[in-house]
Amino acid sequence: MDSALEAVNRGSTTIGIKTPSFALLASHIKPIRPLVEPMEKVFAIDAHVGATGSGYIGDILRLIDELRLEGQKHRLSFESPIDVGSLAKHLGGFLHNYTIYAVRPQAASVIIAGADQTGIHMYQVDPSGTYFRGAGFAIGQSSDSALDVIQREYSADMTVEQAVQLSNKAIEKALGERPVVEVGVVTKEGKFRKI
Amino acid sequence: MDSALEAVNRGSTTIGIKTPSFALLASHIKPIRPLVEPMEKVFAIDAHVGATGSGYIGDILRLIDELRLEGQKHRLSFESPIDVGSLAKHLGGFLHNYTIYAVRPQAASVIIAGADQTGIHMYQVDPSGTYFRGAGFAIGQSSDSALDVIQREYSADMTVEQAVQLSNKAIEKALGERPVVEVGVVTKEGKFRKI
Amino acid sequence: MDSALEAVNRGSTTIGIKTPSFALLASHIKPIRPLVEPMEKVFAIDAHVGATGSGYIGDILRLIDELRLEGQKHRLSFESPIDVGSLAKHLGGFLHNYTIYAVRPQAASVIIAGADQTGIHMYQVDPSGTYFRGAGFAIGQSSDSALDVIQREYSADMTVEQAVQLSNKAIEKALGERPVVEVGVVTKEGKFRKI
Amino acid sequence: MDSALEAVNRGSTTIGIKTPSFALLASHIKPIRPLVEPMEKVFAIDAHVGATGSGYIGDILRLIDELRLEGQKHRLSFESPIDVGSLAKHLGGFLHNYTIYAVRPQAASVIIAGADQTGIHMYQVDPSGTYFRGAGFAIGQSSDSALDVIQREYSADMTVEQAVQLSNKAIEKALGERPVVEVGVVTKEGKFRKI
Amino acid sequence: MDSALEAVNRGSTTIGIKTPSFALLASHIKPIRPLVEPMEKVFAIDAHVGATGSGYIGDILRLIDELRLEGQKHRLSFESPIDVGSLAKHLGGFLHNYTIYAVRPQAASVIIAGADQTGIHMYQVDPSGTYFRGAGFAIGQSSDSALDVIQREYSADMTVEQAVQLSNKAIEKALGERPVVEVGVVTKEGKFRKI
Amino acid sequence: MDSALEAVNRGSTTIGIKTPSFALLASHIKPIRPLVEPMEKVFAIDAHVGATGSGYIGDILRLIDELRLEGQKHRLSFESPIDVGSLAKHLGGFLHNYTIYAVRPQAASVIIAGADQTGIHMYQVDPSGTYFRGAGFAIGQSSDSALDVIQREYSADMTVEQAVQLSNKAIEKALGERPVVEVGVVTKEGKFRKI
Amino acid sequence: MDSALEAVNRGSTTIGIKTPSFALLASHIKPIRPLVEPMEKVFAIDAHVGATGSGYIGDILRLIDELRLEGQKHRLSFESPIDVGSLAKHLGGFLHNYTIYAVRPQAASVIIAGADQTGIHMYQVDPSGTYFRGAGFAIGQSSDSALDVIQREYSADMTVEQAVQLSNKAIEKALGERPVVEVGVVTKEGKFRKI
Repeated sequence: MDSALEAVNRGSTTIGIKTPSFALLASHIKPIRPLVEPMEKVFAIDAHVGATGSGYIGDILRLIDELRLEGQKHRLSFESPIDVGSLAKHLGGFLHNYTIYAVRPQAASVIIAGADQTGIHMYQVDPSGTYFRGAGFAIGQSSDSALDVIQREYSADMTVEQAVQLSNKAIEKALGERPVVEVGVVTKEGKFRKI
Repeated sequence: MDSALEAVNRGSTTIGIKTPSFALLASHIKPIRPLVEPMEKVFAIDAHVGATGSGYIGDILRLIDELRLEGQKHRLSFESPIDVGSLAKHLGGFLHNYTIYAVRPQAASVIIAGADQTGIHMYQVDPSGTYFRGAGFAIGQSSDSALDVIQREYSADMTVEQAVQLSNKAIEKALGERPVVEVGVVTKEGKFRKI
Repeated sequence: MDSALEAVNRGSTTIGIKTPSFALLASHIKPIRPLVEPMEKVFAIDAHVGATGSGYIGDILRLIDELRLEGQKHRLSFESPIDVGSLAKHLGGFLHNYTIYAVRPQAASVIIAGADQTGIHMYQVDPSGTYFRGAGFAIGQSSDSALDVIQREYSADMTVEQAVQLSNKAIEKALGERPVVEVGVVTKEGKFRKI
Repeated sequence: MDSALEAVNRGSTTIGIKTPSFALLASHIKPIRPLVEPMEKVFAIDAHVGATGSGYIGDILRLIDELRLEGQKHRLSFESPIDVGSLAKHLGGFLHNYTIYAVRPQAASVIIAGADQTGIHMYQVDPSGTYFRGAGFAIGQSSDSALDVIQREYSADMTVEQAVQLSNKAIEKALGERPVVEVGVVTKEGKFRKI
Repeated sequence: MDSALEAVNRGSTTIGIKTPSFALLASHIKPIRPLVEPMEKVFAIDAHVGATGSGYIGDILRLIDELRLEGQKHRLSFESPIDVGSLAKHLGGFLHNYTIYAVRPQAASVIIAGADQTGIHMYQVDPSGTYFRGAGFAIGQSSDSALDVIQREYSADMTVEQAVQLSNKAIEKALGERPVVEVGVVTKEGKFRKI
Repeated sequence: MDSALEAVNRGSTTIGIKTPSFALLASHIKPIRPLVEPMEKVFAIDAHVGATGSGYIGDILRLIDELRLEGQKHRLSFESPIDVGSLAKHLGGFLHNYTIYAVRPQAASVIIAGADQTGIHMYQVDPSGTYFRGAGFAIGQSSDSALDVIQREYSADMTVEQAVQLSNKAIEKALGERPVVEVGVVTKEGKFRKI
Repeated sequence: MDSALEAVNRGSTTIGIKTPSFALLASHIKPIRPLVEPMEKVFAIDAHVGATGSGYIGDILRLIDELRLEGQKHRLSFESPIDVGSLAKHLGGFLHNYTIYAVRPQAASVIIAGADQTGIHMYQVDPSGTYFRGAGFAIGQSSDSALDVIQREYSADMTVEQAVQLSNKAIEKALGERPVVEVGVVTKEGKFRKI
C-alpha cells in the first residue's frame, strides 16, 4: 500500500475543482517525445461523468475501464444514468479488494466528477478504497503545493474560465514551470466535455 | 491481528452510549482540507439500526456494506427487520473468517446500535470477530481516556442531549481539544437518524 | 498447534462436572468494563445440550455455531435430538481438519454436556480434534489447580448446589480470588438451562 | 514423514496377534485424570473387523472413520462384508496421498484385524501408505521390546486367553510396569468384540 | 517489471514511422546461422493492420497471436475490421493483467500500425500495459539513438521510400553497422504488406 | 528428482530377464520380522502382464494400481488386452507429470513384462518418466553388480529355470548373501504367473 | 530457463538437414547397456512429418506426444494433414506457457521436419517457445562443432545418402568418435520413414 501511495505521489499533478454550477478536471501532461501524442489524462466515463487519475498509467487505464463498465451496467439495468456517488463507491470497493488478497494493490488515485439529479458532484478515490467528496482536490507530484493555491483562491461563484486559470496556476506553482494540461468540464446541463 | 488492533487504536475516537430509551453513536471527525467534505463516520444500516467504526476507512466501508446487505437479506427472507444481535453475530463471523485464511484481517472495530422488539441494543464488534453487548463503548485513538469519562458520568436516565454532551466531553478529554463529531441516534420508536 | 494450546491455557478457567443425575458447566467471567455486559461463556446448543469453552473468543463462537448447526441438522434428518457423543465426534473432526491444511488451527477447547437416551454425558474436545468423555474437566488458565480440587472433592451423589460450590471453589483456587462465574446445568429430564 | 514416524513411536504401545483361529488387538491405555474416561483405543470397524492405532489421537480417529466409511460403502455396493485386505489397501492409498501434496502427513500407524471368507487376517498400515500382512505386530512406544517378546513366545495354537497374557507381557516388558490395556478380538465366526 | 523492460532494451532495434498517408514498421534482423531463416519480425495482424515487437521472442509471438485473435473476434462479432486503437487498448489490458498476479510479466514491447475509417494510426504498447499513439517510435537495443535520428529527420510528407531510408539510417546509427531489416507498410488504401 | 533416484537405488534389488519365449521378474525380499509376511514385490497387472518395482513401497503400490487401472480401461474400451508398450508409455507419462508440478516426484522404478500379439516385451520405467525396452534390467540396491552378472551370462535360449538361477546369482552377487526372492513369469502363451 | 537450456546442451547430439527434395533427422544414440534397446530418438509424428529432440528424455517424449495429438486433431477437424509450420507454432506456444507459470520449463529442444503442399519444411523449437525455420540445425552436446561441419559442407543438391554421411561426419566431429545414430527422412512424396 505504501508503494502504491508513493507511485501516486510521483504521478502527474492532477486537479479537480467543483462549484455549484460545474466541475473541472485538469491533469498535467508530461512532455514526451515530439512524434508521440500525449497520453489521454482526462477521460469521459459516461455522457454526464468524467474522470482523471494520477499514478501508474496502466493502472489508471484499468480503473477508467472499470468505471465505464459500471456506468454502462447501470444504464442497462435501470435505464437511467448512474449517480456520481455510486461510481465512487463502486471504485472504492474495487480498489479495496486489491488490498486484501495476495495481489499488487492498484497504484492510482482517481478523481471522478459528474452531474446527476442532485447536482454536480466530485469525488477522490484512493488506492486503499477510501473516497472523499469535495470541491477541490489535487493529487500527484507536489500536490500539496497545488492544493494550497486552490484552497486560497477557490470561490464558489467562479466561472469555468476562472477555474481553468486557477488550476493552471496551481499546477504551475507545484511544478515551477508553465505546464501543458488536459482539461475536462461537466456542467449543470449534465454533459461532460473535454476543452 | 496485532497490526489490525493497532490500526483500530489509531482510528478516529468513536463513542457508543446506550440507555433504556435510546442509543447514541458519535465519531470524531478529523480535520481535513477545507474544500473536502468530511468522511461519513456514522452510517444508517437499516431504518432501525445505525453503525459507526474506527480503523482503516476502506475496511470500515466494506463492513458497513456487509451489515446493510445482511439487513436487506433479512427483510427479503423474513419480511421483518433484523434484530440487532443477529447483525453483530453476523459481522463477528464475517470478521473471524479473515483471521483464519492467508488474507489480511480487516482493521476496523464497529459499534452497532439499534431498536428491535426486545428494546434498544448496542454491540461492539472487534477485528477478531469477538462481539460485546453494552451500554458504553469507546474505540479508536485514546479510547481509554474517553471510556473513563463515560463510565464515571453515565446515567441510565440521561436524555439524548445529555448523552451528546457526555460523548463530546469524552472525546474532548481523549484528544485534548474541542472536537467536531458526527452523531446518530436510535430511539425506542425504532428509527435511526443522524443529528 | 502449540500456539493454539497456549491460547487455551490463557483462556478463562472453565469447569465441567458430571454426576449420574446432572452435568454442570461453569466458566469464569473475566471482569470487564462496567458498561459492557459480560460475554456469554456458557451456551445452549440444543434443548438437551449445553457447551462452554476456553481460548480465543472468536474461535469459541465459531465452534459453538458449528455445534448448534450440527444439532439442527440432526433434528431435520432424523426428527430426534442428537446424542451427545455425536456432537463431540463431529466437533473433533471439524477441529482436526484445521490441523492438516495451511490455515490457522482453532485456538479453543470446548466442554459439551447433555442428556440423551443413554443418560448424562460430558465431553472435552481439544484443538487437535481429540475428545474425551469424563465426569470432571477443567480448561483454561491454571486449570491444573482447578482440576486438583475437583478430583479431590468430587462425589457421584453431589447435588447441583454442591457441584456449583465445588466448581466455584476450584476456580477460586486456580485464580486466588473469588470469581464471577456463568453456570449452566443439564439434568436427567433432558433440559439444559443457565442458572 | 520423519516427524510422522516419530509421533507413532511416541504413541501408546499397541499389539496385534493373529493365529489361524482368532486375531487380538491390544493397546496400552495411558493413565489419565481420575474423572476422565480412557480414550477408546480399539475400535469396531464393521461387524467382522476391528482396528487399533498409535500416534496422534486426532489422526487415528480420522483414519478409523475412513475405515468405517469404506466398510459401509462396500456393503452398500456389493451387499457383502468387505474383505480385510481391501480395507488395508484402501487405508494405504488414503495415507499415501497425504505424502505427496503440501499437507501434513497423517501421524498414525493402524493395525486392522478381521475375518472374511478366506479366514482371519491382520494388517499393519504405516503413515507412508505401506501395509504388511502378518501374525504379530507391535507399534508405538518401545514397540521393539514388545515385538521381541511376541516373536519369542508366539505359538499358532494359542488360545485367546494365552494371547491376552502374551500381549500384556509384551506391553509390560516395553513399559517396565503393569499396564492397563484395551483388548478386542475377532474369531473365525466372524464377529469382532471388545473384551 | 524492471527485468521485463531490460529485456525489451536488449531486443532487436525496431522502428515505427507514420505519416498521414502510410505507416512503416521496420525491425532489425540479427545475423544468425547461414542455414537458418531469419525469424519473422514484422507480422500481419489483419488485412489492414501489422505489428512488430522487441524483447523475448517467445513473448512477442504470444502477443502477436493475441492481436490476431482479437482482430478475428471483432470480424466475427461485428462483421467489420477492428479499429487500430481497440487493438492497442486490448493488448494494453492483456499485458496489464500479467503485472498484477504472481506470474512472469511479458517481456516485450509491441508497435501496432494500421488503417481504419479514421485514417492511419500507430501505437506503441509497453509491458506495463501502457500504450501511446504517435508518428515515430523506436524500441529495443540503442533505441534512444535511433529515435533521435527519426525525430530530427521526420517529415509528414515523406514517401514510403524516404521512410524506409530514414528507418535504415536510424537503425544503422543505433547499431553502428549497416543492418538487415524486415519492413512492413500499411497505406491509406487499408492494406498491410511486407516489403 | 535426485532424491527419487537415490530412493530407487536403496530399494530392493530387482531383476527383469526376457528371452523370445518368456520374461521373468524377480525381486529380493528383504528379511523382516518373523511374524510378518513379506511384502508382495511382483504383481500381476493383467492376465498377460506382470510388474515389479524398487523404491518407496507406498509409491510402488500406487504405480501398480495405476497400471492395473489402465489395463482394465483398455479392456473396457477395446475389448482386448492392452499391449505392453502402451502400459509402459502410460506409466511414463504418469510419472513425468509429477516432475513438473510442485508435488513430490514418485520415488520408484518399475519393470513391466508381458506378452501381446507381437511377442514378449519388457520395459523399465524410471521416476523421470523415461522408459526403455530391453532383455535384461536390474534396479535397486547394488543393481550395477547384478546387471553385470546378467549381461555376462544372458543367453536368448535360456529356459525359465536357467533364468531363475541367473537372477538368483545376480542378486546374490549384488548383496553378498543368498537372497530370498519373489519371482513371476510370463510366457508366450500369454499368461503371467507367480512361481 | 537457463537450466532448461543447459539440459538441452547436455543432450544427445542431434542434426537436421533439409534440401528442396528431402529433410533428414539424425540423433546420436548414446551407448547403453547391452541388453537394453536404444531409446527411440527419431519419431514419426504423422504420415508426412517426423521429429527428434535433445534434452531430458521424459520431456522429449511429452513434446512428441503433444505433436502427434495436434496432428491427429487437425486430421479430425479438417480432414487433411497438418502443415509443418502449424506444428512448430503449436509446439512453441505449448512450451511458452511453461515459462510463465510457476512450473518447471520443459528441458528439450525439438526439430520437426515434414512435407506439405508448399514443399519440405524443417523447424527448430526451443524451450522458450521460440521457433526457427531452416535448412541445417544441430542441437545437444557440442552442437556448435556439429553445426560448423554442416554449414561448411551443406549443398542444396545433396542426395539423401550424402546428407546421411554429412550428418554422421558432423556428429563424429562433435563427439570425437564414430557414433551410432538413428535417422529418419521425409521426401517430396510426403512420406516420413526411419532408415
